[in-house]
Amino acid sequence: MKVPSAAISRLITYLRILEELEARGVHRTSSEQLAEEAQVTAFQVRKDLSYFGSYGTRGVGYTVPVLKRELRHILGLNRRWGLCIVGMGRLGSALADYPGFGESFELRGFFDVDPEKVGRPVRGGVIEPVDLLPQRVPGRIEIALLTVPREAAQEAADLLVAAGIKGILNFAPVVLEVPKEVPVENVDFLAGLTRLSFFILNPKWGEEMMG
Amino acid sequence: MKVPSAAISRLITYLRILEELEARGVHRTSSEQLAEEAQVTAFQVRKDLSYFGSYGTRGVGYTVPVLKRELRHILGLNRRWGLCIVGMGRLGSALADYPGFGESFELRGFFDVDPEKVGRPVRGGVIEPVDLLPQRVPGRIEIALLTVPREAAQEAADLLVAAGIKGILNFAPVVLEVPKEVPVENVDFLAGLTRLSFFILNPKWGEEMMG
Repeated sequence: MKVPSAAISRLITYLRILEELEARGVHRTSSEQLAEEAQVTAFQVRKDLSYFGSYGTRGVGYTVPVLKRELRHILGLNRRWGLCIVGMGRLGSALADYPGFGESFELRGFFDVDPEKVGRPVRGGVIEPVDLLPQRVPGRIEIALLTVPREAAQEAADLLVAAGIKGILNFAPVVLEVPKEVPVENVDFLAGLTRLSFFILNPKWGEEMMG
Repeated sequence: MKVPSAAISRLITYLRILEELEARGVHRTSSEQLAEEAQVTAFQVRKDLSYFGSYGTRGVGYTVPVLKRELRHILGLNRRWGLCIVGMGRLGSALADYPGFGESFELRGFFDVDPEKVGRPVRGGVIEPVDLLPQRVPGRIEIALLTVPREAAQEAADLLVAAGIKGILNFAPVVLEVPKEVPVENVDFLAGLTRLSFFILNPKWGEEMMG
């Protein structure tokens, strides 16, 4: 059975809601409550969870810490992923300083092509030349945050793939061409702005239908 | 007829592809070509476009500049939106320097609560206190980029809504509570990382099924 990609995004939303419920001391929840907070239907919640097994008890609902732990396991958040940042401009530097990666993601490398940046210390390390990717990635770094300029993104992605990267979080507004074994997620705030543009102009087409 | 939210994201992808085709001097395209580049089915492309009218000619396909112009119009990119940044830390500052907003989006305000930041010049303006939002937003700023820390995000969103903001691009990893007339898009790289985590662990559940 194939799980639609959008279901994974919803699982992440449910996990966030469970974390908030837990922080508020709530121990039990229901598909109705999760649905209301996530702005989907209760049927959708049950269907999304059903892809991975049956977690609730009819008429009783879900135990918050149990469902949270199961979702973290499904999403692979019960392990630690090694990250690197490729492109140490302002965005890359801001990400190197970002305090919120949590315990599942650890920054283990910082790379740039600019000789003036190489050698500069950053929180958690020092900027290295991209030439070192083939030595630094294998066995240590699974995911790259790609923060180079748009015109350099494909070449940097090629280097990362050759070095054995397993996934790329792409901040450049381009569609990267990579082998299909290497998933790419685009963090694309221009797309976000464009979606806002559409939804502001078309309020009746809002978000009731979750894609 | 309701247009699924995910269709809007695909229209943005088609627009990017059309821009790339145009840059390469390609004048005509087809739903098959768009589908291949966007990694969806040709049926999906035709269905997405059909929500807004009929753009292609059977057996002839689409004229690249015409379809591009139509998509820009549908998405509201044929007008100029006023933006502000609320939260001038590293991420906010990186965004203030970002050169790629294009002609449809213009930065018109920069706000922070920190008296030490207020008054500091940034590209295109100067940082102002959030207290000035009610004076600065109406008639001039439609969309806010919210780059404050997680724990300050809801309060800042409340201020923006009270000031009359029309949409929020939220960079904080929280689900904002806003009136349903105010669309929120989350630029959420932790969600992106988590999706990568899942897809790396579940390669067969890749992206063939577009959500």
